Amino acid sequence: MDLNADLGEGFGRWTLTDDEALLACVTSANVACGFHAGDASVMRRVCDAAAAGGVRIGAQVSYRDLAGFGRRSMDVPPDELAAEIAYQIGALRVFAEAAGSTVSYVKPHGALYNRTVHDEQQAAAVVAGVRLAGGGLAVLGLPGSHLLAHASAAGLPAVEEAFADRAYTAQGTLVPRGEPGAVVHDADEVVRRSVGLALDRAVTGADGARVPVEARSLCVHGDTPGAAAIARRVRAALEKAGVRVEAFT
Amino acid sequence: MDLNADLGEGFGRWTLTDDEALLACVTSANVACGFHAGDASVMRRVCDAAAAGGVRIGAQVSYRDLAGFGRRSMDVPPDELAAEIAYQIGALRVFAEAAGSTVSYVKPHGALYNRTVHDEQQAAAVVAGVRLAGGGLAVLGLPGSHLLAHASAAGLPAVEEAFADRAYTAQGTLVPRGEPGAVVHDADEVVRRSVGLALDRAVTGADGARVPVEARSLCVHGDTPGAAAIARRVRAALEKAGVRVEAFT
Amino acid sequence: MDLNADLGEGFGRWTLTDDEALLACVTSANVACGFHAGDASVMRRVCDAAAAGGVRIGAQVSYRDLAGFGRRSMDVPPDELAAEIAYQIGALRVFAEAAGSTVSYVKPHGALYNRTVHDEQQAAAVVAGVRLAGGGLAVLGLPGSHLLAHASAAGLPAVEEAFADRAYTAQGTLVPRGEPGAVVHDADEVVRRSVGLALDRAVTGADGARVPVEARSLCVHGDTPGAAAIARRVRAALEKAGVRVEAFT
Amino acid sequence: MDLNADLGEGFGRWTLTDDEALLACVTSANVACGFHAGDASVMRRVCDAAAAGGVRIGAQVSYRDLAGFGRRSMDVPPDELAAEIAYQIGALRVFAEAAGSTVSYVKPHGALYNRTVHDEQQAAAVVAGVRLAGGGLAVLGLPGSHLLAHASAAGLPAVEEAFADRAYTAQGTLVPRGEPGAVVHDADEVVRRSVGLALDRAVTGADGARVPVEARSLCVHGDTPGAAAIARRVRAALEKAGVRVEAFT
Repeated sequence: MDLNADLGEGFGRWTLTDDEALLACVTSANVACGFHAGDASVMRRVCDAAAAGGVRIGAQVSYRDLAGFGRRSMDVPPDELAAEIAYQIGALRVFAEAAGSTVSYVKPHGALYNRTVHDEQQAAAVVAGVRLAGGGLAVLGLPGSHLLAHASAAGLPAVEEAFADRAYTAQGTLVPRGEPGAVVHDADEVVRRSVGLALDRAVTGADGARVPVEARSLCVHGDTPGAAAIARRVRAALEKAGVRVEAFT
Repeated sequence: MDLNADLGEGFGRWTLTDDEALLACVTSANVACGFHAGDASVMRRVCDAAAAGGVRIGAQVSYRDLAGFGRRSMDVPPDELAAEIAYQIGALRVFAEAAGSTVSYVKPHGALYNRTVHDEQQAAAVVAGVRLAGGGLAVLGLPGSHLLAHASAAGLPAVEEAFADRAYTAQGTLVPRGEPGAVVHDADEVVRRSVGLALDRAVTGADGARVPVEARSLCVHGDTPGAAAIARRVRAALEKAGVRVEAFT
Repeated sequence: MDLNADLGEGFGRWTLTDDEALLACVTSANVACGFHAGDASVMRRVCDAAAAGGVRIGAQVSYRDLAGFGRRSMDVPPDELAAEIAYQIGALRVFAEAAGSTVSYVKPHGALYNRTVHDEQQAAAVVAGVRLAGGGLAVLGLPGSHLLAHASAAGLPAVEEAFADRAYTAQGTLVPRGEPGAVVHDADEVVRRSVGLALDRAVTGADGARVPVEARSLCVHGDTPGAAAIARRVRAALEKAGVRVEAFT
Repeated sequence: MDLNADLGEGFGRWTLTDDEALLACVTSANVACGFHAGDASVMRRVCDAAAAGGVRIGAQVSYRDLAGFGRRSMDVPPDELAAEIAYQIGALRVFAEAAGSTVSYVKPHGALYNRTVHDEQQAAAVVAGVRLAGGGLAVLGLPGSHLLAHASAAGLPAVEEAFADRAYTAQGTLVPRGEPGAVVHDADEVVRRSVGLALDRAVTGADGARVPVEARSLCVHGDTPGAAAIARRVRAALEKAGVRVEAFT
């Protein structure tokens, strides 16, 4: 099982994610590329540290929206969106390659992630941007999303991810944030669900029944206090349960 | 002799340079990379057109200053500046490579160009950024500048350029803008000086005497009305005079 | 009848609207406030010229989106949107008041204009921002829009505007851009429709029938070549027809 | 003695200053206006809290440089700079007035603060911007700075401030950051120096001798961990020593 986390989400004077602590326990780093967070210096630093720690580097691409941290859905025309995605990947690639690594995959951030689950046009635009960037990059996303469907159709590796701290419906989709119980706050429960997702390929749904979830990567969050501590516990629990924690292939 | 011009200096709804007309007569395109001008869509379009027309692509890197069009000198710490330069090169490279070409060289824009003539620290930082981007890119700049000295010292090709529409001092430096006669506005004179720079390796200085100017590239301006027309005339005059107009090697 | 136009839509090195020519014929200037266009220097210059010419100043507020010129709809949370609207009004007010005038009204730009026609939450947020800015500013918008309904409900003057260069449905709404015939390109026709809107309070609809349109302001466009010339003709035709061209009250 | 601190220096998703804690002990709040930090929502929230707590509101104006947090000196032409200063003041004024307060003074931030100490042209431009904004705002700055000289010459109240955590030369200027001992890190010492500045109108200079420092305001820093705790101790010590802590008049 792969463990991925959002990293490098500072900007200039501001910091957010505890990059060092997270890099010590994840296998894939979703590095912000400057559109919602992450200036050139942060990107360089995170790529250097990821490469040194053997952590795979991915481009966490976003709408161009620093003020909204990429959390505001935007009607960007497909051609513009594709070009913006490629721009971000290219910028990150410089730092990944300078560090002796490379950009291996792409994961949309925030509102773009949510929108490309169901918006076919933007999903196609993101995939077009990934293709523009070349190199046959993998795309990381939600099982059943238009994003992954388009990635597969384009011949790119589509990698499903799961969330140990989010409630699932009986249909295997995420309970929308804002609904009661959408986010699992209890660390023990998050750890338990992580192991279940890895070994049993399932979680307990909001209605108590078993929900099958096929995922090759587990997303751990990095932008809240204590996030790195939970990520460490998740990794330790997975390894204790005999799960091999390594980057997806 | 190489002919270079600044291109792709629009942004979003705004246009500036007549990219199509300039690409028809220059051999090297200094493409804006998003920091002073040039969004991802513009960059893609210009790279596609440059590649189709056999025009070499260079990264026209800048301070991060859209509001000031990169014309305001900034005290950017060297590490930040180097990372920002690499970021811009990487972003442009995606579009150059998607178009079947590549980024061949780097030329600083505006205030960064002027500052790296004499500011050794920033000159070194720009060269550090170019090295970070890899690929052994050439650096285009003013003869005698710290920028070219640092590029050479770093083992990068340093390419001197000359300006047919700028007055030169007896020492071979540019008469500063703002001083009387600093800019040559007469198109016939610009054309004449271009041929002199190519064949005679010299211009007539502000004091009337011959000033030797060694340059492998001639910069033609693209952001004023009529700029493309002058560029066309320069190219025609060079060819008529038997000068081979081609990208520097 | 009031004549309004978008002005000050340059940014830094870039220009767009022919502000001087438009200020010579409109009675209300929708001045860009820096979020989709219009830096502080442009805003100051336009306010000075508008005040000198006796043209009323309005705040043309927008999503924060320079790269997209405010034409990309954004899901901005209501509280953020209200604060951003107030911010823009306050910034413009400084220049209007320094010029001896004041900001009299607010008109949303681009995607925000279109969205607040039908999106009640964002319409309410814009009105909340206008109220936050104080001064009982008028709101300029489309008849029947949520924006104007919320403005009225908040006790702000709601001013309907009409478009002489847009086709109308039988119901009095605009034919969406993109549909055939949505935009009237013939200058003579635009002039004729302007007079009809002012005197007859109606236009000829897309189906040929008379469509009543109640409007106290007529929007003339300023961002296309020849726009100022058409605006001048519209004003001359209105005055020749005996229409009093003056700012709405 | 007035106590001032920089506040509202978050942006979008990022936070920096502990605004609530600082507002509980300062008498003047230097509120960031969006150019180096501080989006519209942050500005609104800080103004509301400052007004509720009876804390005076000032505009902490900056170069337009989010990526550099306004810490990079920029060669902004005077007219542009003046307009940008006025823009920021106007934007903040909306929120101050909506909260029932007003903007009372202006303090440049970061590189602009340092530069206007000795750069007469930029100092004059900042004062021109303050005058453009109207209302006869006070200007807060370093004793002996060009900024305060120009403010006085323009008929604006010039308010000198002192720093309890910075070393002073025998001439009464600040020991430049970067030199050994430039910053006083010991909290007890900061508190002692604060009382000395208020009662004795002097500090102990770097060479051990008494350095007279006339200041009507004391700047406490807010962007480091523990900053609010030190500010609280400074205020308590001043009050215990019989100093009346209140906004300058």
